[in-house]
Parts: sequence; C-alpha cells; structure tokens
Amino acid sequence: MRAVTIRDGALSVEEHPDPEPGPGEILVAIRAAGLNGADMLQRKGAYPAPPGSPADIPGLELAGEVSARGPGAERFEPGDRVMAVVGGGGQAELAVVHERAAMPVPETLEFPQAGGTPEVFVTAHDALFSQGGLRPGERLLVHGGAGGVGTAAVQLGRAAGARVTATVRNEGLRADVAGLGATAIGPEEYVEAGPFDVILELVGAPNMGGNVKALASGGRVVVIGVGAGFKAEVNLVALMGKRGTIRASTLRARPLEEKAAASRLVEKEVLPLFEAGVLTVPVAETFPLDEVEAAYERFAKGGKFGKVVLLTG
Amino acid sequence: MRAVTIRDGALSVEEHPDPEPGPGEILVAIRAAGLNGADMLQRKGAYPAPPGSPADIPGLELAGEVSARGPGAERFEPGDRVMAVVGGGGQAELAVVHERAAMPVPETLEFPQAGGTPEVFVTAHDALFSQGGLRPGERLLVHGGAGGVGTAAVQLGRAAGARVTATVRNEGLRADVAGLGATAIGPEEYVEAGPFDVILELVGAPNMGGNVKALASGGRVVVIGVGAGFKAEVNLVALMGKRGTIRASTLRARPLEEKAAASRLVEKEVLPLFEAGVLTVPVAETFPLDEVEAAYERFAKGGKFGKVVLLTG
Repeated sequence: MRAVTIRDGALSVEEHPDPEPGPGEILVAIRAAGLNGADMLQRKGAYPAPPGSPADIPGLELAGEVSARGPGAERFEPGDRVMAVVGGGGQAELAVVHERAAMPVPETLEFPQAGGTPEVFVTAHDALFSQGGLRPGERLLVHGGAGGVGTAAVQLGRAAGARVTATVRNEGLRADVAGLGATAIGPEEYVEAGPFDVILELVGAPNMGGNVKALASGGRVVVIGVGAGFKAEVNLVALMGKRGTIRASTLRARPLEEKAAASRLVEKEVLPLFEAGVLTVPVAETFPLDEVEAAYERFAKGGKFGKVVLLTG
Repeated sequence: MRAVTIRDGALSVEEHPDPEPGPGEILVAIRAAGLNGADMLQRKGAYPAPPGSPADIPGLELAGEVSARGPGAERFEPGDRVMAVVGGGGQAELAVVHERAAMPVPETLEFPQAGGTPEVFVTAHDALFSQGGLRPGERLLVHGGAGGVGTAAVQLGRAAGARVTATVRNEGLRADVAGLGATAIGPEEYVEAGPFDVILELVGAPNMGGNVKALASGGRVVVIGVGAGFKAEVNLVALMGKRGTIRASTLRARPLEEKAAASRLVEKEVLPLFEAGVLTVPVAETFPLDEVEAAYERFAKGGKFGKVVLLTG
C-alpha cells in the first residue's frame, strides 16, 4: 500500500507492506483521512506515535470500507462503510483497526466528511460531556470555534441545549461559526462575554488567566489543545473562589478499551444527530494523497472553517 | 453574649447582642470552637466574612448544646449536642445555625474534639470524595498531613480503602501522622513517592509543579489551601499527558443548601466511623475564650498535630 511517510520531518508518499488484520481487527480500505494538530507536531518529531501504532505513518482518523476481517471480528461486513479514531497510520491506503474502535458511517455523510469526523467528534464529545460534564442550559465557551474540533464542539454543545459562545480569530469566519449555532466573538472578548460553565480550550496557555476570570461558579476548563503555548500561570485563589476545575486531556494515548468506550458513546449520542440532520462536518478543503505536503501546509496556515481532509483512495 | 471580635486586625473578647434564631434555625450555646487557617486571613482583613455571617466575629465551626429553636426548627431538641460548619461567628458564647447545617455530636467525642471536628471533616470529606472522587485502592497524597484538615483527610482516606501518603514538614510529627495510617514523608520527597491518584493540596502553589509530575494517569489535584502562595505555574502538556485534573474549592462561601448537603453526607458517611472508633480528632491544644490571642498565635506558629480549639463556655 501507499502511505504518507514522515522521515526526518519531511513528508512523502511511499510504499509500505499491506497491514494484516489480527484477532478482532478489520482491514479498512481508506477513502478519506482528516488532518489534525497532532499530525503537525508528529511531523516535527515532537509527538511520537503511541506504542502499537506505525511510527512513521501519521493520521489519527480515517473513513473507508471494510476489505477484510481478522479472526473473530464480526461487528462489520466486508464492504461496510466505517470510520475510526486510530493511534496513527490513518493517512494511507489501508489500515487495521480494532472493530470495537470503529463506527459505522452515518448515511448522511460522504467520505470526505466521514474522514474528518471521528477524531474531532469523539474528541469534542469526550471533552464536553465526559470531561467537562456539560449540562443543558449551561453556558459553553469554545476557544477556536472555526477549526475541526471547534466546529464539532459548537454543534454538540448547541444540540445538547447549552448556550454556546465561540472565539474565532479570523473575522471572516465568524458568520460561518455563528451559522452552527454559536455567538461568535473575537479572541480578546471572552472574559466580558462570560461567565461560562464550561470552557473548551483548544488554543493554549495564553488564555488560561482569562479563562479563570471568565469561569462561572463551579465551572470547568477542559484543555485539549495547546498550540499557542503550554506554560500557564494559574491564580489558585481565583480558582478556589470559583470552585473551578482545570482538566486536561488527550484522546490519542488512551488504551484501546477507553477509545472503544468513547466510540460507543459517540455511536449512541452523536451519530443519531447526523442521521437527523442536526450535525454537519464542515470540510474546508480536500487534497489527493499525493498532495499531502500541500494539505499539511493548508492545515498549518490556519484560518479555515472546518476540516482539511486527505482523499486516500 | 461574649464573642471574639476582630477590630482593625486586633483580637479581643467583647459583649455582643445575643443572636436570635429565625425560621428553621437553632440557637447553640457554644462549648468549643476550632481555629482554622481562614481565621488568620480574616483577622488580617484578607478574607471578609460572607454575606449573612457576622462581619466581626470569626469562627467557622462550633460545637455546643441547643438552647432554643426558631419557628419550624425540629431536627434537634433543646439540650442536644450539635456541631456545625458556619460562615462565621463560631468563636462566641452563642450562635444561630440553620438546623440543616447542624449535625449531632457523636457519643465518642468530647466537646473540645467536637468543636474541632465539623470544618475539617466536612472539608476533607468534600475534597477527597465529592471533589476528588477518591476510590478504594487508589493512592492518596495529603500535603500537610499533620494539621486539622490533614489529619482528617489521612484518616478518611485510610478508612475508605485508599493507600495514603502524607507530607509533614515537622519531622517530630511524622510518627503521629503515621499512627493515623499514612506513610509520612518530608515535604520534598513526594514526587519520587508517587504516582498518586488524588493529591490534596493544603499548602499552596509551590507544590503544583511537583504535583503534576507526581500525578497518576487520570489523577486529580484538589486545592483547598494556599497558605504558601497562590500563583501556580502549570505545564498544560504535562497535565494533558496525565489526563489530569486540578480542582480548587472552598467550603465557606457556599450557599446554605450546599453546606447542608455536605453536612448530610458527613452524617451518613463519617459520623458512623466516629461511633465505630475508626476516626479520632487530634487536639493539639485548647485555650479558654479569654486567651484567644494566644490561641491564634499557637495556630499561626504551625508545627502542630491536629486542632487548636477555643473553649467558649
């Protein structure tokens, strides 16, 4: 198979041996694979793949068709459309995925969208509800509302009955984010727009001082992105006064059973909202596999609405 | 009634009008009232009493006998031994307490102990279980294990089946803390003694860098004391790698219904452990009401095992 390959920080598309599905695994003929912030770090060597994942093939999410099943795998039939979060190896023509980590692709999603769905919707759902405990009627702030996780979080918050505000750096994208159901504001306006019960931090440490100020009593800051910096200064007295929580999380490094559990929750609570037409997956741009370098450049440039997706087959 | 009175940072015992119990309230003839860190701050003017509490009479906990009941109060009979967390006003001969905030004094406790029980046991129970979600078999670190909240937390963690480690600055007190069921270590030894699932921070910001390092995957730091400083630097990438949580809390400023709920939980889950002889309240020293200045000095000096208690009647 052909796969995006990282070698000393350079990206290329190279031949690799076809992977073979082990017990409980399925082989997926990948059609689309979304890019994520972690890919940019992995390319720079700053975020090595977790054990059990290909060390040199990036890609944390994929969508495609089941082309073979390993011993005991029976959740899907060959030909079924599936999507999954993986520890790596998604940006390739083939990948093996444990069947418990895979989800069916909702009928309303074409492959470009489906390839950009699992990582951001599993991440956003886990962050908002499992980590942040978001409840109906609460006030949610999403920092970085125009990106992949941001657009997923805005829609999920809205669908769950929260009142959603999102910071969007690029003024030209604020109407798009507002169209998803958020009040879209500039990146410096969030403290006065508060207080918020849950703050989803996708930007990083520079926001943390303001986040504590913008927090409602009993509020939770969930940190899952730190692209803008990771050394945060936190005023503990202010946080005590708010009886506030700062929780940090990543999806990628979790063990299989936790990823599988997160996928089951998304199947139960999120996929029906795709079928009902409540959720969409904004795709900013797609690139064929051979133009992976351009795809990464587009992602790194930022200022996009939704996902950058590689079309792998 | 006579009551400890704060006037421009000075402590005295002065005459105040007797308080009268309103609807649902009881009047308590106070016998003993523990000192707490917040009293030291309030004396300095750094921690004003919350609305509804006497502005100039300190004291967050008390134990005594019910001497009168307001309209509709029926949980206790006159003469019953009760103890309670209050927003202020505990260091006096009399105080009114909402009957839902009061708890019966376990038969195994004399008044000096009972006066030093509610604040630290409600605080420690709330911090460990309601905030930190401590579970049997987990590893608990208590920073500052020899003080009032520390000795309560060590015992509660141990009673709940956690493996407890406690930092104790004063080397001479480590055997006492070990006697409560903890591995007692020096204040610089905790990172290498980890990892810990729950860390109870009673000291402050200087520990926060080490706390994140000492945290187990999925671990929770609960911050309820910041005497040593409140400006913490937090490495968010390290916290993400641990999928860790920092939660800060205070009891004093909570609304009545939350204090009442915390008291009900302590009645249900803690008081039976006093009756069973599993828990004790170490009292470092008692002082009569008129020696309040000496009592505060003793508290502020630190290096004590357990509570400093004022005997008010």
